[in-house]
Amino acid sequence: MSEERKSITECEAFAKLRELAKTPIDLTASGVLSPERVQSFCCHGDVFDLLYSCQRVTNEVLDVLQELSDECLLVEQFQEMRQGAVLNRIQNFPSENRQVLHTACRDLFSEKSACEFAANQAQVELDKLKVFLAELEQGKIRNEKGESFHTLIHVGIGGSDLGPRSIYEALRAYADTKRTIHFISNVDPDDSAQVLAEADLSRSLVLIVSKSGTTLETLANESIVRKALTDVGLDPNKHCLSVTGESSPMDNPDRYLRSFYMYDYIGGRYSSTSMVGAVMLGFGIGYENLLAFLEGANSLDNAAGEKDIRKNAALLSALLGVWNHTFLGMSTVAVLPYSQALHRFPAHLQQCDMESNGKSVQRNGEALQIKSGPIVWGEPGTNGQHAFYQLLHQGTEDVAVEFIGFRESQRGKDLIIQKSSSQQKLVANLLAQSMALAIGKDDANPNKRFPGNRANSILLAEKLTPHVMGALLALYEAKIVFQGFCWNINSFDQEGVQLGKKLATELLEAMGKNKEKGSLADAFLNVAEMHSQS
Amino acid sequence: MSEERKSITECEAFAKLRELAKTPIDLTASGVLSPERVQSFCCHGDVFDLLYSCQRVTNEVLDVLQELSDECLLVEQFQEMRQGAVLNRIQNFPSENRQVLHTACRDLFSEKSACEFAANQAQVELDKLKVFLAELEQGKIRNEKGESFHTLIHVGIGGSDLGPRSIYEALRAYADTKRTIHFISNVDPDDSAQVLAEADLSRSLVLIVSKSGTTLETLANESIVRKALTDVGLDPNKHCLSVTGESSPMDNPDRYLRSFYMYDYIGGRYSSTSMVGAVMLGFGIGYENLLAFLEGANSLDNAAGEKDIRKNAALLSALLGVWNHTFLGMSTVAVLPYSQALHRFPAHLQQCDMESNGKSVQRNGEALQIKSGPIVWGEPGTNGQHAFYQLLHQGTEDVAVEFIGFRESQRGKDLIIQKSSSQQKLVANLLAQSMALAIGKDDANPNKRFPGNRANSILLAEKLTPHVMGALLALYEAKIVFQGFCWNINSFDQEGVQLGKKLATELLEAMGKNKEKGSLADAFLNVAEMHSQS
Repeated sequence: MSEERKSITECEAFAKLRELAKTPIDLTASGVLSPERVQSFCCHGDVFDLLYSCQRVTNEVLDVLQELSDECLLVEQFQEMRQGAVLNRIQNFPSENRQVLHTACRDLFSEKSACEFAANQAQVELDKLKVFLAELEQGKIRNEKGESFHTLIHVGIGGSDLGPRSIYEALRAYADTKRTIHFISNVDPDDSAQVLAEADLSRSLVLIVSKSGTTLETLANESIVRKALTDVGLDPNKHCLSVTGESSPMDNPDRYLRSFYMYDYIGGRYSSTSMVGAVMLGFGIGYENLLAFLEGANSLDNAAGEKDIRKNAALLSALLGVWNHTFLGMSTVAVLPYSQALHRFPAHLQQCDMESNGKSVQRNGEALQIKSGPIVWGEPGTNGQHAFYQLLHQGTEDVAVEFIGFRESQRGKDLIIQKSSSQQKLVANLLAQSMALAIGKDDANPNKRFPGNRANSILLAEKLTPHVMGALLALYEAKIVFQGFCWNINSFDQEGVQLGKKLATELLEAMGKNKEKGSLADAFLNVAEMHSQS
Repeated sequence: MSEERKSITECEAFAKLRELAKTPIDLTASGVLSPERVQSFCCHGDVFDLLYSCQRVTNEVLDVLQELSDECLLVEQFQEMRQGAVLNRIQNFPSENRQVLHTACRDLFSEKSACEFAANQAQVELDKLKVFLAELEQGKIRNEKGESFHTLIHVGIGGSDLGPRSIYEALRAYADTKRTIHFISNVDPDDSAQVLAEADLSRSLVLIVSKSGTTLETLANESIVRKALTDVGLDPNKHCLSVTGESSPMDNPDRYLRSFYMYDYIGGRYSSTSMVGAVMLGFGIGYENLLAFLEGANSLDNAAGEKDIRKNAALLSALLGVWNHTFLGMSTVAVLPYSQALHRFPAHLQQCDMESNGKSVQRNGEALQIKSGPIVWGEPGTNGQHAFYQLLHQGTEDVAVEFIGFRESQRGKDLIIQKSSSQQKLVANLLAQSMALAIGKDDANPNKRFPGNRANSILLAEKLTPHVMGALLALYEAKIVFQGFCWNINSFDQEGVQLGKKLATELLEAMGKNKEKGSLADAFLNVAEMHSQS
């Protein structure tokens, strides 16, 4: 495995793409968006079709993006990652120096896993979970009064919250309606207070999720929940579960009914398919649906090993993103799912992408010469059409758009109104927006003019099932990782969070010394003073 | 009232600011972020303090921003707006040609309103609402079985959804715990299906919100909810309420228990303080809390009439935004509330700002020579610290940040852990992030370096009460309007949504003709074909 990775700027393909980016195709030009183009610029996969005729690429650009992918060894690095390469590192400098093996959490469905030891560890935890869920089901695990647990309060933040929460929301149509899930994440005491005001604590399991077992917010919220349990005469140690690293402070059978492990080769933002997401999902949507979700993720991981960019939706999506961001200069990506169930999925991608690729240093320790990751944001359509789409169509910021859609609804409860079902209206709007952004429209009234030529693509699947949700998650994880490889950055650390933590500690100390009202501004002043002197 | 408004590029201040923007202050330079600066760069208002020492401005820049504000007559235009000027128009071209009077909805607390007729119309609706809420309370309005209504299902989209929903979420701590609110917005049938699976329909009022009475999504969802009521033997006409324009198709006493009016001088995204938000809020948090919310908004509208930018938080915030966006080139604004209750407020601002100012045409019909509104996005802190803050601190995109914080929590349920309460931890983190973004940190390890010099400000209030929420909403509404005036655009229309609607209709027709599976891609092809020939 080669130690020294190529910077994208050193690639032959880079110079070619720079040149091509000077005159990108104009989607509004007559005949460009032809039926032939629509038909051929479509990547068919087992689960998803990626429709990319409305991206500002030609076959020539695609060919050079293929060269870039080959030169940067994107697929080779992805396979090395799955096999256990130490990719979470910066050469010549102290760094986390870890393997990156979130894919192993779901590499359980074929004869041979890419990384046996990690897949085996994942299987052990999954088996523990299966037993635990069965014991809950069979009534072997009950509360103080002998009643079953019907509620789970998931306590975690960042990677231990956004991914699991967005997946649960996406799959609520498959949830056991007798069971309720609550989430507490923010250190804001109003977050826990609201959940505790609503939950039936005596029938609640409380799942504390922290890899290190030392996350400030999660520990504070755990204390608050434990006190609430004690206050109503319950024993917290008989309600609390943990997901944490083996032998962390939270791996303690005296305090937790059961502990499930995650390992330091899994980054928080990539941990949704580990026990971080699995325990809550197993409780909420059932073990079989959880397995289907994991299998969907695994199938996508396998598909991401294809080197032909036109046949690999994750890789193609990554390279189209690089084209839009690095070469055409778009600062942001809007992820717009036409599915209300995916309403929190953009927030998860916002973390997964921006925390992974919001970097300025290459893996060799040198400064990056180009821009790294974009800003990721989004809300579901059609809601967004009545909100921020105005700017997408007629504003002065050029936004790359990634639509996500499904041919069928999850619940199948629909009504024909004015000759079409709501699902048909939903999908027609999705396709129409994609087309409208691309083709634009001229008008004698300048205020009714649409410049068009806005790059976008559509990821289309049959129906948002657990299997498809797993594939969707894994597709974006792979996309993000491919882009990190391409920009030659370490997508797996997060040093950018450290300074804020340090200053917060200093401020808390300053605030502790000055308790009267108005002390906030004073605390701020104190820190400013300290730093103005340093 | 002058017809011809100055383009920002014609202002003397514009050239000066361009010049100043070539060498903006470096917040990381030794001694810059001094205690004196922190103390003096603070705008004290009745409700909010705006701390802006971490913006990249000097007193010289502020003086020229004041000149810009004066030259563009920002405050004068705001007052004209409140008095009923026809500001929703494009000169020389057909346009909506309407007044802009959302401020009148809350201009009910002083002897004389800025626009009497509109304030009177608002008062009439508010009085109707007061009677209706009292009748619900007194049991004069009941369901078929004589039971009280304990649930309200709010059906609306865009401006009829995001604002009301985010405000309800913000004020849930003040909600009547015996009452439940549900929201349906998306035409995705899974949205209504989930709410209908959870709500107790027999005890539910259903509020349909559409100014025109013709919004596609809202009508589809109304039909689905009406059918669900009928299916369980209930009479929809005895459960449904409407908020709509007078004499719209939804102003029909045969079909609605009660109709409340909004007027065409109120834009959807500015309608939260009209009946669009008021009916649901009155039901959910009570009439007195609703009044406090309106009074808070009105007090901010009054404060926004101050011409000294250093004494007017809304105006200063607008001008700092113009400085960051137009002069320093930042494409996006992150709104980061350190309050879990405000978790949906950034989504509302995303609509209100981007739909208002995502334009390319000046009010005189000429093309805009500069960039108009930025992309607005955000999630609550401290959650975001464990997610996308990595990019804010160490990424290659320069993001303007607007923090929002409160000294006290809403519910006061807190716990001291390691010498500080959760609320103290929350606020310490807010201040620390602001400082960390500004000052940065050098390090021998390039991966642990923070460039700093990231522009940000903090909007700080005592506690998120209904009054403060009203003021917060109105502050941002005023900020957005001030920026629109400054860029000389019409912030009150939304022509950018029309093309997508038209193409969606064409697609639905094409899909209707081709019903077999796979017809989606075909429909897309058909539309491509039509447009390639046109």
